Amino acid sequence: MTKQEQASGALQPVIWTEDHVSLLDQRLLPEQVVYLKLNTAQDVWEAIRHLKVRGAPAIGISAAYGVVLGSRHASEDLTQWRELVHEAAAALATSRPTAVNLFWALDRMKARADALSALGGTLESAKRALLDEAIAIQSEDEQTCRMIGEHALGLLQPNTGVLTHCNAGGLATARYGTALAPLYLAQDQGMNLRVFADETRPVLQGARLTAFELQQAGIDVTLICDNMAAMVMAKGWVQAVIVGTDRVAANGDVANKIGTYGVAVLAKAHNIPFYVACPMSTIDLHTATGADIPIEERAPEEITNGFGKRTAPLGIKVYNPAFDITPAEYVTAIITERGIIRPPYPEALAALFAGL
Amino acid sequence: MTKQEQASGALQPVIWTEDHVSLLDQRLLPEQVVYLKLNTAQDVWEAIRHLKVRGAPAIGISAAYGVVLGSRHASEDLTQWRELVHEAAAALATSRPTAVNLFWALDRMKARADALSALGGTLESAKRALLDEAIAIQSEDEQTCRMIGEHALGLLQPNTGVLTHCNAGGLATARYGTALAPLYLAQDQGMNLRVFADETRPVLQGARLTAFELQQAGIDVTLICDNMAAMVMAKGWVQAVIVGTDRVAANGDVANKIGTYGVAVLAKAHNIPFYVACPMSTIDLHTATGADIPIEERAPEEITNGFGKRTAPLGIKVYNPAFDITPAEYVTAIITERGIIRPPYPEALAALFAGL
Repeated sequence: MTKQEQASGALQPVIWTEDHVSLLDQRLLPEQVVYLKLNTAQDVWEAIRHLKVRGAPAIGISAAYGVVLGSRHASEDLTQWRELVHEAAAALATSRPTAVNLFWALDRMKARADALSALGGTLESAKRALLDEAIAIQSEDEQTCRMIGEHALGLLQPNTGVLTHCNAGGLATARYGTALAPLYLAQDQGMNLRVFADETRPVLQGARLTAFELQQAGIDVTLICDNMAAMVMAKGWVQAVIVGTDRVAANGDVANKIGTYGVAVLAKAHNIPFYVACPMSTIDLHTATGADIPIEERAPEEITNGFGKRTAPLGIKVYNPAFDITPAEYVTAIITERGIIRPPYPEALAALFAGL
Repeated sequence: MTKQEQASGALQPVIWTEDHVSLLDQRLLPEQVVYLKLNTAQDVWEAIRHLKVRGAPAIGISAAYGVVLGSRHASEDLTQWRELVHEAAAALATSRPTAVNLFWALDRMKARADALSALGGTLESAKRALLDEAIAIQSEDEQTCRMIGEHALGLLQPNTGVLTHCNAGGLATARYGTALAPLYLAQDQGMNLRVFADETRPVLQGARLTAFELQQAGIDVTLICDNMAAMVMAKGWVQAVIVGTDRVAANGDVANKIGTYGVAVLAKAHNIPFYVACPMSTIDLHTATGADIPIEERAPEEITNGFGKRTAPLGIKVYNPAFDITPAEYVTAIITERGIIRPPYPEALAALFAGL
């Protein structure tokens, strides 16, 4: 690994390379940096399902490329190609249930294929245009993250503490991340923030990914167990919490990695602002409230055998929800690429989209 | 392991056997049930320091036997023997800083040795009487735990949910436990409680010990990660939180395993009563408030390399406090062998001891 590749901005989770997707296997971080070669939509489905790629925007980007991979063997005509696009999208939609960016990206790819099919060009030009759409989703995400970072930076003071949960960093997006974007920009400006990263059981994205990418960037980061966040807040070390999200409902309820809701309750009890950073594509006005967001439950082994060793008795009953819902009342502000949204969310979010 | 030994009540953490301590190595649970043979005070010091035995009452019991082991080679006279008792006690006091039962048990053993020395009997009779004192500490603890359980049981309703953190069970005491004692008694009475056990990072006492001993007893227990407690509460599955403690200050502030404070804040936010169960020996009127309780910080490897696998980047900065302080305002009641103590704690705790 060269020095260049070690920089957090350069360690991209998803790279389109000539005719395939190079995907950073995030399950192996931080011990190994391994890129997988994905050649088919099924490969992409597996990568999403088994958390080789994670983070709502990065899942959306991967799925978009998955649609390209799943339709490129069309040889007859645009009708057959369009059918393959829809088949691949339908299959990829079953990979994970909570992140709305997945469905947003698949819908965008289907709409583009429908338009290209209606346009009636050559098969080759349609395939190329669909690949360009996936590439556009990725490059727009990078620009989006940078804008989120710039808006969020205005909410932070120099020499203060920021707590984050899970990984909403460069590894979860095209680059920069959502929740972590302001931390990278703050670093560039010498703002000298102190970051606390919850390790985020059971899969430890905070320990494996957030601590890793912030450390690589030279940012002052301290790793804690999830159950230490309350004490760190009580000590006065945290002036802001920033997290990402997998879906924001129309009323401002937020779905994010399990544990986020608890952090939000603790932040409120300690009078610390709780910010959610996300692209507009994560906000779903078709989802009325958090109660309408499906919560994925994952295998008990993530809890009982998570560290390469069994840490719980055989046959023990386990509850393992992958996400939780933070009610809008706990959310101080939602930071998007188009600015900072504050309560009341139903009106503010509707206005945000009405202006598009 | 016979069926008899599998019953939770029978799996005692500390057993005096003829001339040594048989100590259940709790670091190996739940995969292996191994009893260590401790022959010296130094063996006991190591066992406490390295968490082979843990839980405030069990630490106190072990330390008491440690004083016996550290003084039994006295061959000259009562003066030499008494010096060895004080030396062993001083050494054992350095094993862990937070649990007050450790100091309580050592003080009791020293006081007994002082009295026996002043009495002026034979060396052998003094040694035997000091061993009897350690045995008495252990058997009194069993009775104490049973009384705590009976008082606590009156606070619980049938068919409801109880959440606990860390392990304040039979494995942490002579038998029954403190926080878990009412659960065993409820089980005997067919009260049908549903228990949620926080896994309790970093050392996973909840997953390895609480889930294990409750499962062995046939109690309905569900293991969750620490960061799932908030969601389980939001779902309405928890009607009471019960935890143990390593020290209660005169104002009712409570030191307990890291994460307890967060659970208390979450309980309050969900209008769930938060109970602390402990013997009187855990209440220290000489400690004015929680701010006066030393908080042990442990090695970063417990977080970064906890279970045979590195789960965080090399060189990452870590904060690893073993305990936190729950301010008295979050504590609904403190349950002791002498009854249920409610706020205001300064007056109630003083009155409790004044009556002795």
